[in-house]
Amino acid sequence: MGYFFSLEGCEGAGKSTVLKLLADTLKQKGFRVVTTREPGGIEIAEQIRNVILDRNNVKMDEKTEALLYAAARRQHLVEKIIPELDKGSIVLCDRFVDSSLTYQGYARGIGINEVLTINKFAIEDYMPDLTIYLDVPPEVGLARINKDKNREVNRLDVESLQFHAKVREGYHLLLKQYPDRILMINAQNDIDIVHREVLNKILQFINAR
Amino acid sequence: MGYFFSLEGCEGAGKSTVLKLLADTLKQKGFRVVTTREPGGIEIAEQIRNVILDRNNVKMDEKTEALLYAAARRQHLVEKIIPELDKGSIVLCDRFVDSSLTYQGYARGIGINEVLTINKFAIEDYMPDLTIYLDVPPEVGLARINKDKNREVNRLDVESLQFHAKVREGYHLLLKQYPDRILMINAQNDIDIVHREVLNKILQFINAR
Repeated sequence: MGYFFSLEGCEGAGKSTVLKLLADTLKQKGFRVVTTREPGGIEIAEQIRNVILDRNNVKMDEKTEALLYAAARRQHLVEKIIPELDKGSIVLCDRFVDSSLTYQGYARGIGINEVLTINKFAIEDYMPDLTIYLDVPPEVGLARINKDKNREVNRLDVESLQFHAKVREGYHLLLKQYPDRILMINAQNDIDIVHREVLNKILQFINAR
Repeated sequence: MGYFFSLEGCEGAGKSTVLKLLADTLKQKGFRVVTTREPGGIEIAEQIRNVILDRNNVKMDEKTEALLYAAARRQHLVEKIIPELDKGSIVLCDRFVDSSLTYQGYARGIGINEVLTINKFAIEDYMPDLTIYLDVPPEVGLARINKDKNREVNRLDVESLQFHAKVREGYHLLLKQYPDRILMINAQNDIDIVHREVLNKILQFINAR
């Protein structure tokens, strides 16, 4: 049985950069590492994602969307994450259940526990062993995004500052709800410092098991 | 506020024939009647259905499928059923939540209450006012479907006979779980008798409200 770690945070928190650095370092240390993010190249999950992101689907209800995310998550978990964990890999996942809980459950107002209910159905006991939450104030995160000209701006990036503040609030609620599973890292620091801190947390977790 | 009635039953129980007769009679009596079935021509629900029914998606996990059905149901409910109920229509729906509960929850083994959980998220308090369950033994239902074919029972027929027996068992469990909402009608009788019995139940319900 491997290790299942997820990275969470608002837009511009540096998740994908940290994930890449982390994977490289852990590989150098001899671990078998797999990085992934939903829909993870899983054909069925990609098809579901296409329905969610179709710009013509303006009538998409928020709960329909939450159920579709849960469905795509289930398939990605079953087809990709679980087989890797069974091989003993370290799975590093860019966003997982907590993103649904804060974006849809809290910021969109469906309710954290309601969104948790359908996700519990989807993932059963496959909660991440450890979740690293990269914390930045929304104005810092959004400023980083706007600076990076190579980054494609997606639908969520253009949401208001208020929405991102609400997402951050949601993450802080989840920190209280899951104090043992979720660790917060100050992601305003230089990326190398953030990377080292996250790496230490992960190695501590592995050594303690 | 209108009336929300669903029709349930195994394959070959006569749902669609009864639904059509019922709609005609109720219209003649002056009611505004809408008949529908998932995905009900709702574009987003059709897209979701296409993912479920895509023959290439052989790796589709059963829980992914259950979440997709719940998502399609949500969208069909929000875009079509609720607006009709708000107009005061009688909505006659060919299959609704109980089909998921028995086919996926019971016959496929996910669990009735687990499938109910995600459906409660999807439909909130919009359970049908009354559900008519047309009861036939699976061999009668399957014989009706295969009426024109004079063939011996093969392995697949036996499998489906067992599966349909399980679906029927599931409906009987639901009858116990929802004694006030679900009414059973013996659908082995002639279709005109079945139609009249269902019509009486529905008129009784409307008059009693």
